[in-house]
Amino acid sequence: MLSKKIILRDDEIPTQWYNIVPDIPNGLQPPLDPETKEPMGPEKLAVVFPMSLLEQEMSGERYIDIPEEIREIYSIWRPTPLVRADKLEKALNTKAKIYYKYEGASPVGSHKPNSAIAQAYYNKKEGVKRLATETGAGQWGSALSFATNKFGLECKVYMVRISFDQKPYRKAMMHTYGAEIIASPSSETAFGRSVLEKDPDTPGSLGIAISEALEDAAGREDTKYALGSVLNHVIHHQTVVGLEAKKQMEIVGDYPDIVIGCCGGGSNFAGIAAPYIADYLAGKKVRFVGVEPASCPTLTKGVYTYDFGDVAQLTPLLSMYTLGHDFIPPGIHAGGLRYHAMSPIVSALVREKIIEPISVRQLECFEAGVLFARTEGIIPAPESNHAIRAAIIEATKDKNEPKTILFNLSGHGLLDLGAYEQFFSGNLKNYDYPAEAVAEATKNLPKI
Amino acid sequence: MLSKKIILRDDEIPTQWYNIVPDIPNGLQPPLDPETKEPMGPEKLAVVFPMSLLEQEMSGERYIDIPEEIREIYSIWRPTPLVRADKLEKALNTKAKIYYKYEGASPVGSHKPNSAIAQAYYNKKEGVKRLATETGAGQWGSALSFATNKFGLECKVYMVRISFDQKPYRKAMMHTYGAEIIASPSSETAFGRSVLEKDPDTPGSLGIAISEALEDAAGREDTKYALGSVLNHVIHHQTVVGLEAKKQMEIVGDYPDIVIGCCGGGSNFAGIAAPYIADYLAGKKVRFVGVEPASCPTLTKGVYTYDFGDVAQLTPLLSMYTLGHDFIPPGIHAGGLRYHAMSPIVSALVREKIIEPISVRQLECFEAGVLFARTEGIIPAPESNHAIRAAIIEATKDKNEPKTILFNLSGHGLLDLGAYEQFFSGNLKNYDYPAEAVAEATKNLPKI
Repeated sequence: MLSKKIILRDDEIPTQWYNIVPDIPNGLQPPLDPETKEPMGPEKLAVVFPMSLLEQEMSGERYIDIPEEIREIYSIWRPTPLVRADKLEKALNTKAKIYYKYEGASPVGSHKPNSAIAQAYYNKKEGVKRLATETGAGQWGSALSFATNKFGLECKVYMVRISFDQKPYRKAMMHTYGAEIIASPSSETAFGRSVLEKDPDTPGSLGIAISEALEDAAGREDTKYALGSVLNHVIHHQTVVGLEAKKQMEIVGDYPDIVIGCCGGGSNFAGIAAPYIADYLAGKKVRFVGVEPASCPTLTKGVYTYDFGDVAQLTPLLSMYTLGHDFIPPGIHAGGLRYHAMSPIVSALVREKIIEPISVRQLECFEAGVLFARTEGIIPAPESNHAIRAAIIEATKDKNEPKTILFNLSGHGLLDLGAYEQFFSGNLKNYDYPAEAVAEATKNLPKI
Repeated sequence: MLSKKIILRDDEIPTQWYNIVPDIPNGLQPPLDPETKEPMGPEKLAVVFPMSLLEQEMSGERYIDIPEEIREIYSIWRPTPLVRADKLEKALNTKAKIYYKYEGASPVGSHKPNSAIAQAYYNKKEGVKRLATETGAGQWGSALSFATNKFGLECKVYMVRISFDQKPYRKAMMHTYGAEIIASPSSETAFGRSVLEKDPDTPGSLGIAISEALEDAAGREDTKYALGSVLNHVIHHQTVVGLEAKKQMEIVGDYPDIVIGCCGGGSNFAGIAAPYIADYLAGKKVRFVGVEPASCPTLTKGVYTYDFGDVAQLTPLLSMYTLGHDFIPPGIHAGGLRYHAMSPIVSALVREKIIEPISVRQLECFEAGVLFARTEGIIPAPESNHAIRAAIIEATKDKNEPKTILFNLSGHGLLDLGAYEQFFSGNLKNYDYPAEAVAEATKNLPKI
């Protein structure tokens, strides 16, 4: 019998998200008000987030019901396939079994709509008319455009200028879903204007774009803000990935020894890992490997402390591994991994030594992606290549040791083919660990 | 219970392709040798095609077994989902039920690998080392690159120059799968050089690129030729689409009143329609609508006669609806539909009035595609927009008449987002039926 893919029926889409927060050993440090340095309640954040998402953000409940309206939209592409990478295994000549969960199956090509749909839903329900957000490589902006369109909300995307100029297809995708896109820094916000005044030719950064979107949302009665990673509620939403994967692995009678994902803000990795971490905490033997780019080594070279999520210091202080909110990572093509910090949830799990962070370099990641395309057929997103690279490292460490590897193939690379072309023509390079830039950006951070 | 998609298991991939040729009323006229004007046997074609594909081309058997190796590779993306377009139905305020078969689920984003995998398999089996082919918009070239990579064959793609220049992502995709790509006309073939000599700045055409690939294959012992549509064996391979769709429609207890597909060479439409045409010939009531662009109106304005498949007149004479092998269609963005002729199978079914051809215009197709993206979530290929447009016409003709529509969503548009951006900025236009160009290109064709 053919069984390359393990597919679930639409009605097997999970009915609850898993909230790992109450299960984290030694807990999660609360967000702090930057002015008072006291724990921040939901009231102040209610300017930019709807109450139901803030409740999820602060929730101590292990499970959160997924509304039927959300499951119905999920069913456009969920449940996603779990696939046995048998051709990759063969090419590696390994006894390891490799499975991947294919989140590139969504209409926008990544895992991002898992949270975008939920965020659009709750905003709509609370009467919000318009969402403002930022996007780097364009994955999140595309996902939120798709999601707001589904619920009849307006959407304004502040897109990091360098991506805005280099990724016209991403812009076109957001336009197709009816969103409005502007290059960031823009002249539409006070913060954007202040950045442009100092440096009119700046390529922009995710931290700047977040500041602009927050300013937009805070300044308009009809508008809230949406973030595509980092926050607790985003990670809860992404657990549909791991919950489905567990069901699918059960169907083939297998269980992972190692769960792997790439880490930018942390949501795709935590999404697949969290339900397995619950098992680990109950005594099951599993390893968790979070993979970041060597050029933006938040978990492997950053400090664990309180920092801002954006450049303009508009967010609360979050307890995170961080390279400093002023750190601008080198221009690698895995734009989704170019973020200075890591979600509090993933950071706390690294602190507890439950997640093992590793960093890998750009060229090896593209090599891994090409090998994956030539064996498994799917061309992966540059971000997902980091997970593939780590899966290959684990599978070839000791080729004769039978083990089961599961990783999150968080997206396809069809809108990143320009980066592959640059790789083939030898125009991509590795970046060394930017030690001095990190030292500079972290020197004034508080210690915890 | 949620049931947006109807999914089959990997082991439900069809085990046989359906060959409609023996069922066509009044039969199919045989290919003719251009020199003798006599029916052409397989021997002369064996220079460019492997014998097993020629046997399928000439076969009178209703069913052809699908080798397990092919089913195994199909299982990377097949069975593809059948999806109820309930959100589109609602937007149209129609009582019609609309289903689509989603062939964009393949790694290259279209139905083309259904035949590419089969062609690479049979060539490999007969000891061929290298395949030469042409590609217009890039869908077929991508599919054959993917397929040859799977079987360890070399692949040379002659890509119509205007697409080569305008679609760098397509090139990158083919490179990722390890293929060699050259802009056509090229200086690597005698025919290419002769075209370049007359017009060094020519944008190229599919007919020219076919001539170059044929010359390449005929001139090298280790090389055969592969064509992505038109021929009988290609259409047999594509019937997996319709065979799966029938199973899936049975699962929901529905049966189409109308089956719709876009028509370039005819393979995606015949692929979904053929298994239903078998039912029609057995007395079932179904309509079949083949949709072509108004700017390349092969079935609606062409003549039914013997013509060449390429510009250099290297192919046999095929009995087809044609606009003349010298006809160069206007530069619409549905590059896969810019072909001067139509497969003999589809042509004969139009001749028999089993298939109803209609033509639709570019702007209305993009409008339909945007509506589809904003309701169903998936951004369709410009070619597939033609099928969507026709589905909308049928669904809104008489909104209160309950009927069931099934169409082939032959591909996604993620590598065509540039065309969508042009549509939004008002830079796309409709083209009138190019009556004079057609008259000129058809004036010397033989009559049958």
